[in-house]
Amino acid sequence: MADLQLMRELRQESNRKIVLLVLDGLGGLPVESGGPTELEAARSPNLDRLASEGTLGRTIPIRRGITPGSGPAHLALFGYDPLQFDVGRGVLEASGIGITVAKGDVASRGNFCTLDSEGRIIDRRAGRIPSEQALPLVERMSEIQIPGVEVEARHVREYRLAVVMRGEGLEPDIEDTDPQQTGVLPFPARARTPGSQQTAGFFNQWIAEARVRLADQPKANGLTLRGFSTDPDLPQFPDIYGLRAACVAVYPMYRGVSRLVGMQVKDFPGDQPEDEFHVAASIWDEFDFFFIHIKKTDSKGEDGDFAGKAAIIEAVDRALPTLLDLNPDVMCVTGDHSTPARMRIHSWHPVPTLLWAPDTVLPDDQTTFGDRACAQGGLGTFLAADLMPLLMAHAGRLAKYGA
Amino acid sequence: MADLQLMRELRQESNRKIVLLVLDGLGGLPVESGGPTELEAARSPNLDRLASEGTLGRTIPIRRGITPGSGPAHLALFGYDPLQFDVGRGVLEASGIGITVAKGDVASRGNFCTLDSEGRIIDRRAGRIPSEQALPLVERMSEIQIPGVEVEARHVREYRLAVVMRGEGLEPDIEDTDPQQTGVLPFPARARTPGSQQTAGFFNQWIAEARVRLADQPKANGLTLRGFSTDPDLPQFPDIYGLRAACVAVYPMYRGVSRLVGMQVKDFPGDQPEDEFHVAASIWDEFDFFFIHIKKTDSKGEDGDFAGKAAIIEAVDRALPTLLDLNPDVMCVTGDHSTPARMRIHSWHPVPTLLWAPDTVLPDDQTTFGDRACAQGGLGTFLAADLMPLLMAHAGRLAKYGA
Repeated sequence: MADLQLMRELRQESNRKIVLLVLDGLGGLPVESGGPTELEAARSPNLDRLASEGTLGRTIPIRRGITPGSGPAHLALFGYDPLQFDVGRGVLEASGIGITVAKGDVASRGNFCTLDSEGRIIDRRAGRIPSEQALPLVERMSEIQIPGVEVEARHVREYRLAVVMRGEGLEPDIEDTDPQQTGVLPFPARARTPGSQQTAGFFNQWIAEARVRLADQPKANGLTLRGFSTDPDLPQFPDIYGLRAACVAVYPMYRGVSRLVGMQVKDFPGDQPEDEFHVAASIWDEFDFFFIHIKKTDSKGEDGDFAGKAAIIEAVDRALPTLLDLNPDVMCVTGDHSTPARMRIHSWHPVPTLLWAPDTVLPDDQTTFGDRACAQGGLGTFLAADLMPLLMAHAGRLAKYGA
Repeated sequence: MADLQLMRELRQESNRKIVLLVLDGLGGLPVESGGPTELEAARSPNLDRLASEGTLGRTIPIRRGITPGSGPAHLALFGYDPLQFDVGRGVLEASGIGITVAKGDVASRGNFCTLDSEGRIIDRRAGRIPSEQALPLVERMSEIQIPGVEVEARHVREYRLAVVMRGEGLEPDIEDTDPQQTGVLPFPARARTPGSQQTAGFFNQWIAEARVRLADQPKANGLTLRGFSTDPDLPQFPDIYGLRAACVAVYPMYRGVSRLVGMQVKDFPGDQPEDEFHVAASIWDEFDFFFIHIKKTDSKGEDGDFAGKAAIIEAVDRALPTLLDLNPDVMCVTGDHSTPARMRIHSWHPVPTLLWAPDTVLPDDQTTFGDRACAQGGLGTFLAADLMPLLMAHAGRLAKYGA
C-alpha cells in the first residue's frame, strides 16, 4: 500500500494522456537455436519507430522466476503489488461480464465438461462448445433454487460461466472442484475453513441440481467450479492516480479486473486491433488513461503458433497509426506476461516493454522492439508494479517528493 | 519469509535436474588499467560455450555495496535473504565438521594464535600450523572439563577448531575474543546481554584452561574464539523447493551451511574440480539439485594471485565435460561473492552469473563468460536470493501464480 499511497500524495493535474497498450503474453522465445522470438520475427515498422524514438526495458510481472496468471499480471501493470492484492478468478470472471460481486458474495468460475457414464471427466471443456450451445444450458442453470441463498448463473463465453451466491454468512475459502485432469471424478466443493462449510454445501447442492438439468447433453453433461472468491475491495485506480481511466478490451476477464479497479469499461462491436483503437479515438476527450488489451497474442502463444503470434503483432502494428494519430503524450506497449509459443503456456520471462513520450523520455540506443533489444534497453528490467509511476511521471502527473 | 513461502506454494514436481556450481570469490577486477579480470583472462572454452547458448547476469549477494562473508553469501544463493536469516560463524564451522548444534547450544569458531611473553598476539593464526600439528593440541583441549556445562572441542582444518557448549540456560550474545589485530591481548569473552553472562563466564574458564594446556607450544600457545551462536532453525531447503538436494564441497564451512539448510552433504576423496564432478555423477540419479562448491578461486584471490585464480577457473573449465555429460537441465555457474586478487579480500562487486537451460532460457547476445559480459547480460543485475526462483522456473518446477 505504501507505493499507492505515494501516488495519491504526489499526483497532480495535467492534460497529458497516457495509453497502456497490452499485448497479452507478448514475451517469447526462439524456437530454434539462434533464431528470433515472436516479437523479433514480426515485421513492425511502427513499433520499431516508437522504440527508436523512445526507450525500452522489461517488466517482471510478480517476482523473478514467478509465472503469473492474467489477473495478478494485470494488477501489477495497474500498479498494485499482486502479492499484496489477491483477486480470485471467480470475481474476475463475474466482474468481466458485468455481475456485481459485493463484499460477502461468493463468485466462482464454471466450466462445462463432459463426463463418462461413471461421472469421470473425459473432456474438461466439453469439446469447447460454442456460445450458442452453451447459452441455453446456462439458462436452465439459472432456474435452480437453493433454499437459504440467492444464486446468479450467467454465461461468459463458449464453455464458461460464472456462478455467484449471495446471502448471510457466506465465505469463499473453498477448493476448486476442477481436478485439472481427465479420467477422474470432479471434486466436491470442499471448505478450507469451518466458516466456509455452509457455503461449500450450497455450491454442492447447486452442482447436483445442475447435473440433473444437464443429463440429456452429449457434451456438456457436467460442470466444474473454481476460483471461489469475494470482492477484494481494491483501492480504486482513478482515486490513486487522479486519472479518468477507460478499459478497451474484448475478453471478460480483462474487463473484469479493470472494473474491479474502477476503470470505465467500454462496450463496442468488433474484436480486431483496429476496432479497439477506434473505440479509443471515439472516447479520446473523455479520458486521461486508456488501457487497451489485445488478447490473441497470448492465445496464439498457448496454441504453440509462433507465426500466428507474430502475425497478431503485425496486425497491431498495422493498426497503430489510428492510435498514434490521436497524439498520445505517453504511450507504453508491453505485455502482462510472456507466453512463448515454444512453451505453449504462460512463463516467467521478463516482458518486453516500450515507453514512448516525445516530450519527456530519455531515448536509448535501441532501434527495434524485440525481446533482446528490450533486455538492453534504457529502462532496465524492473517490477511491473513500478510501471504506472513511470507512466505518470512521463505525463507530468507527479509532483516532486520532498522539498 | 514471504518469498520462501511463495516457493513452497508454487513448487511442483518435475524430473529436471539443477546444478548450482559455485566458484567461491569468482568476481574480480583488472590489475592494470584496460586489462582483463581473472575470469576474463582465464581460457575457458566450455564456459564460453555455455555463455553463448545461455544467458548472463550478475548477482548482488546481500545489497548493493555490501561485502558478504561466506555464510550469508551462500544463504543468499540458496534463496534465503541473509539480512533476515542470521547464521553465526560458530554454528557454520561446527556444522561443517558434522557437530550438531541444537537450539540452546552455543558454538564458536576458534583460531590457534601465537602470544608473546606478555600474552599479546603476535600471529593471529599461529603461523598457519598444519592440521597434523593442530590435531593433538585440540585433543588436549577436548579433555577440559567445565562444571555446569558440557563442552565439545573439535579440530576443523589447519589452525582452526570449533568449540561447542551444551547445558541449561546458555545464550550466545557474546563478543568475539579475537581483536582482529596483533600487538594486543585477546579480549575476554564479553556478554552483550545479561542472559549471556553465565555463558561468557564458561567460555572464559575454558580459554584459561586451554592456555594452561598450550603453554609449552612454540607457535600455538594461545587461542581466540569468535562467532558465538546457536542453531538458527532455518527453514529447510528440500521442504521449500521440493528438491532432493546434495552438497558437494571440500571445505567445512560450505558443508556446514548446506547441512544447516537440510542438504545431504557428501563425503568423497580428493579435492580437485574433477573429483567433485565425479561425485555428482555418482549420485546423479538420487538427487534433483546439486550444489557444487569450488573453494580455491577465493583462496587465490585472497593470496593476491591473479594468475593462480585464473588457473583455477581454467581447471574447472577443463573438468566441466564430466558435469555436462550428465545432461543437467538447468546449470548455473556463479560465485558467492567477488574476491579480486587485486584487493586480496572479499568485495561487494556483483558476481558474474551464467544460466544455461537449453529448453527454457532466452539466450542473450553474450558469447563469453566474463565480468563485463555479465554486466551486459540478459538477466541483468539482481539479488542473489532471487537466483533460486529463476533456477526453479527454468526447471519447470514452479506452478503459475494466480489464475
